[in-house]
Parts: sequence; structure tokens; C-alpha cells
Amino acid sequence: MSNLPSDVVEALSSRFGERFSVADAVRDLHGRGESYHAAASPDGVVFAESTQEVSEIVSLCARFGVPVIAFGAGTSLEGHLSALHGGISIDLSRMNRVLRVSAEDLDCTVEAGVTREQLNTHLRDTGLFYPIDPGANASIGGMASTRASGTNAVRYGTMRENVMGLTVVLADGRVIRTGGRARKSSAGYDLTRLFVGAEGTLGIVTEVTLRLYGIPERIAAALCSFESVSYATAAAIAIVQLGIPVARMELMDRGLIAAVNAYSGLSLPIEDTLAFEFHGPPASVDEQIQLVKGIVEDNGAKGFEAARSPEDRNRLWKARHNAFYAVVSMRPNARGWSSDVCVPVSELSRCIVETRTLLEGCRVPAAILGHVGDGNYHVVFAVDPGNADELAEVAAINGKMVHLAISVGGTCTGEHGVGTGKMAYLRAEHGDAVDVMAVIKAALDPTGIMNPGKIL
Amino acid sequence: MSNLPSDVVEALSSRFGERFSVADAVRDLHGRGESYHAAASPDGVVFAESTQEVSEIVSLCARFGVPVIAFGAGTSLEGHLSALHGGISIDLSRMNRVLRVSAEDLDCTVEAGVTREQLNTHLRDTGLFYPIDPGANASIGGMASTRASGTNAVRYGTMRENVMGLTVVLADGRVIRTGGRARKSSAGYDLTRLFVGAEGTLGIVTEVTLRLYGIPERIAAALCSFESVSYATAAAIAIVQLGIPVARMELMDRGLIAAVNAYSGLSLPIEDTLAFEFHGPPASVDEQIQLVKGIVEDNGAKGFEAARSPEDRNRLWKARHNAFYAVVSMRPNARGWSSDVCVPVSELSRCIVETRTLLEGCRVPAAILGHVGDGNYHVVFAVDPGNADELAEVAAINGKMVHLAISVGGTCTGEHGVGTGKMAYLRAEHGDAVDVMAVIKAALDPTGIMNPGKIL
Repeated sequence: MSNLPSDVVEALSSRFGERFSVADAVRDLHGRGESYHAAASPDGVVFAESTQEVSEIVSLCARFGVPVIAFGAGTSLEGHLSALHGGISIDLSRMNRVLRVSAEDLDCTVEAGVTREQLNTHLRDTGLFYPIDPGANASIGGMASTRASGTNAVRYGTMRENVMGLTVVLADGRVIRTGGRARKSSAGYDLTRLFVGAEGTLGIVTEVTLRLYGIPERIAAALCSFESVSYATAAAIAIVQLGIPVARMELMDRGLIAAVNAYSGLSLPIEDTLAFEFHGPPASVDEQIQLVKGIVEDNGAKGFEAARSPEDRNRLWKARHNAFYAVVSMRPNARGWSSDVCVPVSELSRCIVETRTLLEGCRVPAAILGHVGDGNYHVVFAVDPGNADELAEVAAINGKMVHLAISVGGTCTGEHGVGTGKMAYLRAEHGDAVDVMAVIKAALDPTGIMNPGKIL
Repeated sequence: MSNLPSDVVEALSSRFGERFSVADAVRDLHGRGESYHAAASPDGVVFAESTQEVSEIVSLCARFGVPVIAFGAGTSLEGHLSALHGGISIDLSRMNRVLRVSAEDLDCTVEAGVTREQLNTHLRDTGLFYPIDPGANASIGGMASTRASGTNAVRYGTMRENVMGLTVVLADGRVIRTGGRARKSSAGYDLTRLFVGAEGTLGIVTEVTLRLYGIPERIAAALCSFESVSYATAAAIAIVQLGIPVARMELMDRGLIAAVNAYSGLSLPIEDTLAFEFHGPPASVDEQIQLVKGIVEDNGAKGFEAARSPEDRNRLWKARHNAFYAVVSMRPNARGWSSDVCVPVSELSRCIVETRTLLEGCRVPAAILGHVGDGNYHVVFAVDPGNADELAEVAAINGKMVHLAISVGGTCTGEHGVGTGKMAYLRAEHGDAVDVMAVIKAALDPTGIMNPGKIL
């Protein structure tokens, strides 16, 4: 708090009353996500309730050069929320109204603080759903800002494909609307895609227009286990290459299955496993299941079984969603460190095998999981955040994974974002294109108050 | 030519020899697209053969403040190629190498001058295809730069979704690579999507990495006719809302069918018509056909018939692709003027009915066609480009269509781009977001040499 100009403190106190807080507990909660990254608390927190309020706060901060960091659900994994230079955290969790749903057009507009579970609960009676599912119950604004994706992306795409438009508060407090409600447009620069994935460094997303989908007439899930991760990825690659429109295709290695069994009270066979979900009209789903069954069995899979009951499916996916927490819970007082690389699918098998080799002898409990239909996989480590040697060991493995991914044409982050955790790898991946990113950052945020120290 | 600094002429002549031309015939060919827009010839044309050459040309032009305009196949419809301020047209048609195809990863990298037909011919033996199909045999670089789409977009998306990465020559001649070969990434600002649709105003696209798709195991087409456009669009909307993954769903009004029959020697019933294509494994295609048949017949369709022979399908789609030329040929010496709006599908029927009303009494031959699954439709007018009254009449109708589209949440251009033709509508559609576009333009092209006078 000491770092905030007194004019800012007075203005925020008088304008927002108890919705402006400098209490330690509140500040500490807003300076970290869910991962191992060291916390750095903001100097104050404002609980905003409208785009207009966010605009006022940013205008005020801009006048005094005070950093602003948007906060949604706090599920960030790469240090996006650390207030490295202090400043104001703008908590958007009270901006949680679903503003509009059009069942006819399969779209909706929500405030940035709406979470994906809240949205799907709201949609339940409409026959529609929003498929993007990063596991955590993240806010839609946060998901847009990190270009999140998750288990359904192999079929439905990521936030990149499913955000139609945004309301954004710029670095000087101006409010703009990007995109629109047409399915496609060639009308000028794609500002929507520029702010999606910008992690609050170019502006603060306050409203999001999303594509929705009809709940499929039939949904089925299936699990099967393989002799090794290589066989599992080979099967996954074949399924992608045949263009079978699976809705989910998740790799869980045997270490992860053990953790998930313990955490979620399941008794899955402790083997390298692929889990599937199939969406569509009945004949199409049956056809997908038969095609997938043939491919996985050609790759030596055992126990392929389709689960059609919603209860069985939900138990499976809830367990998968809790995978991060399951690994972290393997060790008391641990924090999670989730690596996150994405490679061309043809390189997936080799990369995962090399990653396995990197993990040999690692002192930290770790498990591999992946959205393998997209070539995206994670190692989740349960680290002791106070043990510098451990952190260094995991950082070294993480760095090797990233450079391996970049060397085969992949990316240092498939879905978690850059934050502070991946900044060191951006130039290795993008070369001089990083300079163009910096030019855009300087043009849109000339005083550098928007989530400073992230991405660039 | 008189406007080019002699240093530029000498440098280009000595570097490129006969590949640099100031001949009137060559310049005139490069100053126009395929539509009604008045031509404006560049001062000279260079036929570039590599990214390095494009970089050299742009560096030279940057030193002397000479405008540069990229030229692909010359199929632009909105005046993108007009050299309003003279300068150099960089013809990329000799950059026509397919650099790499990965059947395993379903992607490829091509030089910007490769046309979509050339790419699909190249791919034929691989079992893959590139679906984005704007009708014209446009270059991939031009399609990326206008964010093109066309008949398959309802299933496969547009250039926005299918460009994975780019090589771009910036306004000072630097070369960057954007994106990568991973299916998804959260690594920094989405420069790929910024240059896609930027119409050469931020840089020149010289190489494009594209997603490819396996040729579907089964492809079927179908046609049916309706009592009115309203019934046809109602059926189309129901199909979208049910999420049936049709690969193509095209509206052709009775006027268009008459023009297409005459131009392509067909004898289709002269009725408001929907044409479909279905892609997938056999059971899925059969299921799609049955579902669509039920919906169109509920909307009074007659003669729904699925054509499975490749010959019948190809004849149908070739006729559809030639629709623009078919309308233009209704009148000697006419040029085409294709309007291009896109609206939320729920508004499509009303918008098309209002458009029909606008066309009553119009002296210019016109027909309606549309990619109705996306809410995108066109009126193609066959105008006499020398008749100012006619041009004013069409401009007035076009303007009313655009404002109607914007008023219902749609866009002034679904797929043709802004060029010079839609600049007047950009602020009505995007409001103050246009100022952000201008900031980006100024940051990346501070001297304004990149295709000046377009978009902004």
C-alpha cells in the first residue's frame, strides 16, 4: 500500500468504499495463481462491478502511472497475477452476469467474471453448452486472456476460435468493442484475436461474446489402456490423421492414473491410458466408436469400453479435471508446477518418450497427461516451493522440454500462457517477431501499466 | 513511372532486369482486381521470386517513401490492388512453390503465390485437401490477406482458422515468422491473426503454413428448390442450429440459377435453391443427408436429391463457382459488383427479404447468392462501369445493405475485405476500435508505404 500515491488511495476509497481493499489477506489472495510461482501482492484490490468502473479505475491508474492487473478466478498457472511492480488488482469476479444468450444464433455475451461452470449451469435449459474446458473453473475473461483450451479443443477449438467479440478497457481507460456477432468477417484488423491471449498486457477484457454449441444428441465416453505411452500416442495420432471428430482424447500415464485413483477414489487400471469422449447424432457416434476401437486395438489397447451413462462419464471427467490437484496432493504442502508444451502430432510420441527420459531420477513426484489430439501435453510436478534445489531441477527439466518442443516446430505453451514463467523462451520460439509484439505493446500501452512484466 | 525516384528505378532495373517492368500493359494489369472498382496503375511492377527479394524491394521503397502493393492472382473484389498513390506492385505469382507437405500432421507451407487450385492439384496424391474455397482461383497469400472463406467455411472455417503461421516482410524490409506448427499455442500476441486480413497494409505475406484435411471417405451433394428465399433460409438456419456438420450450404436465388444455367449450360429448375455438400465417413454422411432431407422438406422443399457421382458434384460446384462471372456475363461489357455482408443467422431471412425489396426497380441486373450457413450473402450486380447513375444506384443499395447488416450485429464484409470499397463503413461497425487499428497501423508502418489508402 505504501507504494500507491495517496491521491489514488483517496480516489479509490471515496469512489468504491469497501470495494477497495488494502488488507493484507485480500492483497495476498490476489497476488498469486494456483501454481508454484512466488506470490507478489498488489498494493490494493478493487472489486469492480461494471465495464464503466473498470474504465474509471484504469483512467485513474493511468494518470498516476500505477500498474493494473485483472483478476478473474485466480486459476492462473504461469504467474500472470504476480504484482511484480505493485499496483492495483482489479477483481472482476463480481462481473458475473450472463448478459445475453441467443439459442437461435448459438452465441452469448457474458461479463468477464463469469466462470465456465457458471455459464454451463446457466445454459442447461437451453440445450446449448460452451465446450472450452481447461479443467479449472476459470473465468471466461481469464480464459480469453490466456487463450485457454483444454480437453475439448481437439473437436471445438480453443478460445481463439470461440471468442467472437470482446469489450476491452484500454490502457488510457477508453472502452472499445471488437468483433461482432457475425460468424465471420473481413472488416479490418482482427483486434479480437489480438486481445485474446494478451494476458491483460494490452487492455482488460470486461465482456466476451462466445460461440455456443448444441448439446450433442448422443455422448459416449471410453477408456483403454496400453503397454506404453508410445503405443497410446501412436493410436492418438492415427485417430487425428483419419479425421475422426473425437470430442476428447486424453492421455494419462500410469503415474497419473495412480494419483487420480487415490485422489478421486477410483480403481482404474494403473496403465498408460487414453480416455475418449464422442459427440454427435447416434449413427455418427457409433461409427466413431467403432473406428476408434479398431485403431486402438491395432495399437495393442486392452479393455476398450464405451460408457454411455452420464454418471460413469462424469466420474471419469471429474477425475481427469482434478488431475492437477491429484498430483499435487501426492505430497503434503506441495505446490503444482505444470509444464505445457504443444508439438506437431507427428513429433508427439518422440517428445513424450524423451520427456520420460528427462524424468528418470527426478526427485520430485511427477506425472504426464496430455490433450494428445492437439499435440499438447503436460508434466505435473508436485514441488516443495521452499526447496531451491528442487525448483532448479524442475526448471531444468521444464526448459529442456520447451527447447525440445520448439526444435520440432512446437510452442513453449499450448494453453497456459506466457505470464512470467515462459518469457525466457519467447524469442527462441518467435525470433524477431517478438520485436513486433513489443512494438504493439508500446503502441497500445505506452506507459507500461497493463500487467507489467508479463509476456514481454 | 514518372513518380518513381530515379534511384529506385535504377536500383530495381539493375537488380531485377526484365523482372522489373514499367510497361503500360503490365502496370495496368496490376492496378485492378475483378470488380467494378476504377483501376489505378502502379508506377512499376516487380516479379519477385523469394522472400529475400520481397525484403529487398520493400527496404528500397522504404528508403524512398515509395508505396508497395502485393499482387497475387488479381482476383480482389474491393479495390485492394488500386495503386492510389502510385508505387511498386510486387507480383508474387512466381513465388508458387509448395515448400512442404506433412501428411502426418495435416499441414503444409506454401509460397504466397500458390493458388488454391494449384495446391489441391499438388495434394491430390496425398489423400489430403485444402478446403477454403472462395470460388475464384485466388492465391493463398491473397486469401490470407483478405481473410477469405467461401463455400466450405460452414464446416472448415475461414483463413482465420486455417492459417497456422506466416512469413511476413515488414514495412522496413525485416522478415519475421509468426505462429508455428503446433495446433494451438498461448505463446504471446497472435501476430498470425493480425496479418491475416490486414490486406497488405501491415506487411507482405510471402509464405503461409496451412492446416490440411483428409479427403472425406464419402462426399455427397444435394440440391433442392423452395417456394421462396425465406423458406430456403429458414431451412438453412434450422440446419445450423441443429449442428449438422454440412460441408457446404449455398443459397442461389432464381435469378442466379437462370444466369448459371445460361453461363454453364445447365438446366437446373429456375427456383430459389439450396445446394449442399456432405463430407464424412459413410454412416455419418447418410445420417446428415436424412436429417437435412427432413428439415428442408419441413420447409416445403421440392426435389431434394443426393448426387453421389463426382461428375455431378463437380458440375454443380463449378457452376456455383462461376456464379459471379455468370451474372456479369448477363450483360455485354459489364463489370461485377458483389456486395458482401454477413449477419447472425437469426437475422438472415429478414435481411435477405429486405434486400429483395431494395432490389425492386433496380435497373441493374442482379442476383442473390450466399454462404447461408454462416449468415454471409452477396448481391452480384452486373454494372456498366462508365455509367455514373448506375454506379450511384448500386452504391446506394449496397450502403443500405451494409447498414442493415451492421444494425443487426453483422459486418460490412464477410469475406471480400475492406479495400477501398468498405472503408466508409468501418467506423459504423467498429466504433472507436478503428482508432486502435490506426494505432497499430502507425506503429507497424510509420511512413505509410504498405498498400496505402486501404482499410484505414
